[in-house]
This record gives sequence, C-alpha cells and structure tokens, in this order.
Amino acid sequence: VNSPAFIAVDWGTSSRRAYRIVDRVSEATFRDDLGARQAQAIDYPAEIAAIRAALGDLPMLLAGMVGSSIGWRAVPYVATPVRIDHLAAALDWIDPRTAIVPGVSWRDGDRGDVMRGEEVQLLGAVAAGLAPAEGLLSQPGTHCKWVRIQGAAIASFTTAMTGELFALLRNHSLLETQIQSEVTAGPAFLDGVAEGARRDLGASLFGIRARSLLGLGPDDPASYASGLLIGADVGARVAPGETVHILADPALGALYRCAIEALGGQAVIVDSHDAFVAGIVRIRELADDQSH
Amino acid sequence: VNSPAFIAVDWGTSSRRAYRIVDRVSEATFRDDLGARQAQAIDYPAEIAAIRAALGDLPMLLAGMVGSSIGWRAVPYVATPVRIDHLAAALDWIDPRTAIVPGVSWRDGDRGDVMRGEEVQLLGAVAAGLAPAEGLLSQPGTHCKWVRIQGAAIASFTTAMTGELFALLRNHSLLETQIQSEVTAGPAFLDGVAEGARRDLGASLFGIRARSLLGLGPDDPASYASGLLIGADVGARVAPGETVHILADPALGALYRCAIEALGGQAVIVDSHDAFVAGIVRIRELADDQSH
Repeated sequence: VNSPAFIAVDWGTSSRRAYRIVDRVSEATFRDDLGARQAQAIDYPAEIAAIRAALGDLPMLLAGMVGSSIGWRAVPYVATPVRIDHLAAALDWIDPRTAIVPGVSWRDGDRGDVMRGEEVQLLGAVAAGLAPAEGLLSQPGTHCKWVRIQGAAIASFTTAMTGELFALLRNHSLLETQIQSEVTAGPAFLDGVAEGARRDLGASLFGIRARSLLGLGPDDPASYASGLLIGADVGARVAPGETVHILADPALGALYRCAIEALGGQAVIVDSHDAFVAGIVRIRELADDQSH
Repeated sequence: VNSPAFIAVDWGTSSRRAYRIVDRVSEATFRDDLGARQAQAIDYPAEIAAIRAALGDLPMLLAGMVGSSIGWRAVPYVATPVRIDHLAAALDWIDPRTAIVPGVSWRDGDRGDVMRGEEVQLLGAVAAGLAPAEGLLSQPGTHCKWVRIQGAAIASFTTAMTGELFALLRNHSLLETQIQSEVTAGPAFLDGVAEGARRDLGASLFGIRARSLLGLGPDDPASYASGLLIGADVGARVAPGETVHILADPALGALYRCAIEALGGQAVIVDSHDAFVAGIVRIRELADDQSH
C-alpha cells in the first residue's frame, strides 16, 4: 500500500527535529535548537511555513512540547490506557493539513504523570515490533520516562528527573568541579550504580566530596555520580530478571543498559528515531483511515 | 572554679559567629557573612586582630572551615571515635593564644565522611548533658549531619546534602517557580515526608510538576518539596521508636522534628548555640589542664 508523503516534527523543549517521510521512510531531516522553552517567543505559523519551504509543501504532524501551554497551543492530554489509534483520533487540527499529536496523562488517585512527544516513540516502537506489546520501556534523558505497556497501550508511567538532577549537580553544586569530565560506563560508574541502588541520594552524593577529601576515591567522580543517579532510578523501577526496552541515543542508552544489567535486569536498546518515524507514520495512516 | 575569659569563633563556609565567653557564659557575640568560602581572599591575621579589637584582647579558639584547605590553614582531621578531650589535645596552635579546633573524620572501608565545626556543638551538647552519651544526633542544614554518639564519643556519622539539594531545586530547576514560598510544617510538608520516605527522589520531584499540570496539587509545593527531601533523609537514618537529638535553629529543627515524628521516631531539640558554647568552654578548660 502506498503511504502518502508528509512532514513530521518532533518539537521538544530545547530542540526540534523535522523529517520528510516518503513511503514510510525518512528521506530528509533537519534539527535545530529552536525548542518550545518557556519565554522563547516563536512565531509558529511562520516556522511551519519555513519548514514546508525546506522540506516540501506537504501535510504536517507535530508532536512534543509544541502542543503544551508553553508551545503553540495546549492540546489536552489523552488519559491512559492509550493505544496509537487513540492518538490518531485525538489529533488537534490547526488546519486541514496541519495537526498536533496530543500528550498522554496517567492518574491513580493523587498520583499522576504526563508526557508530550514520548508517546509517538513508545507506541511507534510497539507498532513496528521494536518493543513488545507487554513490557517495560524506558526513555532516559533530562526527565526519564518509565512506561508500562499492556495490550499495545501505554498503561501507566513514571517520570524521574534523573538527567536534570545530574545537570544541577554538575552546574551549580558543591560537586561542580569534581564531576565535569565525560561519563563512561566503567568501574566508577558501576560503583555508583551499586551505591545508588541503596536509594540514599543525599548522603551518597555528599560521600563523593567526603571520600575525595579522605583520599578514598572515586577515581572518576563524574561517572560515579552519574552511576549514583541512574542506579537510584533503575533500582526504583526494575525488578531482577525484568527486561527493559530502552529508547535513547546510543551513549545514554548504553549507560542505562549497563546499570540495568548490573542490577539484575536485561536491556534491549531500540533506535529512538526509528521508533519516532514508525509511530508518526502509523498515526498518519490511522488518521487518514479515520477521515475517509 | 573560675574559668578564664576567652573568645570563640565558629567560622563556617558562608558565615562566622564570634563569642566573648566569661565564666562559661557568652557575654557578647557578633555574626557576619565573612565565611571561609572558596575564592574568598581573607587576611586571617588581620581578621583575628579585628575580632580581638571588638571583643577584647583575649585568647581565642576557632572552629569550622577556618581550619580547612579553603580556610586559614588545613588542620588534620581527628579520626573517630572522638571524645571532647581528643579535640582539646589536637588543637592546632597558631600562636600561644590562638588555636584551631580540628575536624573529625570517619572511615569504614571505602566509605568515609568528614566534619569541621559540628564536632564542637555535638560533643558540647553531650558534655553539658543536653544530649545523651549514647544516641543519635542530627544537625540539619545545607549538609545535614547524622551522628552516632557512643561512650560520649563521636563513633560514626553520615552527611546528606539535603539542604543543598533543596537550594539547587529552588534556584535552578524545573520546579523553581513552584517552590519559592516559605516552608511550613503543615499538611503539604507531611505529605512530602511520607512520599520522601519511599526514597525515590527523582520521580517524586518530577511528580510535583506533573501533578500540578493535572490539577492534583500539592497545594503548597515548596513545603511538599522540602518534606520530600527531609523525609528521604530521615527515612534513611531513623528507625521507628528511635530518639534523635536535633541541634538546629528553631525553624529547621521544627521541620526535622515534624518529619522524625511522622516517620515513627521521637525528637528532642537542643539549642545549637548553647551546645557550641558548652563545647568550646570544655575544650578550652581541657586544653588548659593539658598544658599545665
């Protein structure tokens, strides 16, 4: 079956990536730092026209923070459980050729969580068979998503500000000068993972400073600190023997895989761009089916 | 017995407080923000002279970060177990009338921790009967100390960067605008304590943002966030039924007491200035005994 060409934009808080997709394959992309961050005045209609000028005068689907109160316009969340056809049915049409994919909310009593943009990758990975229809998926990053998939739907999820905590520590804390170097998945990282799994972050973090004053290491405090935070995150989420499908860039994915395996789980890395393209193509096709 | 007059200075990272002590009682004090923080060039001999000009030409004992590598000079740590007479015996004499109290280190295999300044309060509280010779003491603050006292000695201790994490979140994080208001020990704080005791900080913190986007509260996110961090700290340290003696200013002491009691412990607040004065007087008297 032929799949008509269109443009997809993954428009996050700090950057955006646009794809021209022809016959389900990404033919051309561009990426820049024009994210939908607070206090950034973006002329969305002009930007949309510029993207069409660059990639072709085609229908366009947008996902991510572009659909939030700090973006172009706030698209209501779709509540879990959410399958990919629910996303297609809830597209917010700006005009007959331009729509925003809604985010997803989860709620259980007073607890709750939200996502915008990740849902396309997640359900795209499931739709393409890159991740199972029943299982635990993880999207590491500034705000790491942990997502329970049941019956090919997003059933529930938890976000941990793991990456943001690391950035705060690296840029503003007592540990700032100690943790500037590149993080690698070596012995210091693994020591940090084991310590982080004790889930006593405030004390473990000060320990980096205290141990260095006493000459007790760690030799590579940046990797150790990253291991602490990722170990605490994984330790709270992954049961021994459990398999996690990780949607991430290769470097961060490798750190999470290493931590998951160190704590007794199993990890499979899924290409997050492939998953996004698979998801947005499926949403486009389902939307066409629904409108015809 | 007469106790000769002297000056005591509690010289920390961000501030210092000086006391003229006559017959074991603080007669006059001053406090300012000339802390021994990194990159602050302090002319210590001139400052010492100025303190004597203000409070009297008396012998002087200094404690705190003034005795660190970022202070006047690095005084070696005394290793646990440390009684107050050990501190007196290890005073670092700058001249026959001026000495720095050493800090304390604890080590157990690869683990370790350090303090500078807190030891005077801790062992002073014990010497004065304000805290027991066997028990758990807490000094909340930027870096919260949790100290096991055995046989009137500091036996072991752990530092958690609880206050620093709160400051990082308040000044630089996603939650910045949500958590500016004053923290009080009300229902939101207690909700945060209960959540914090789950010890899943990265997720609990993001939950503040997510819940507010979903209209699920908390009503007072600043107090809730403080409760999260303090609850995680207390939950990692205090067993149900255990009594903690808290050395702190009244506001922070009340928050810790509230969290400790909510998690099944008991708390006694000790005046930290009284404890410091008691400790430095005892060190001074013991040093006199040792030198005569």
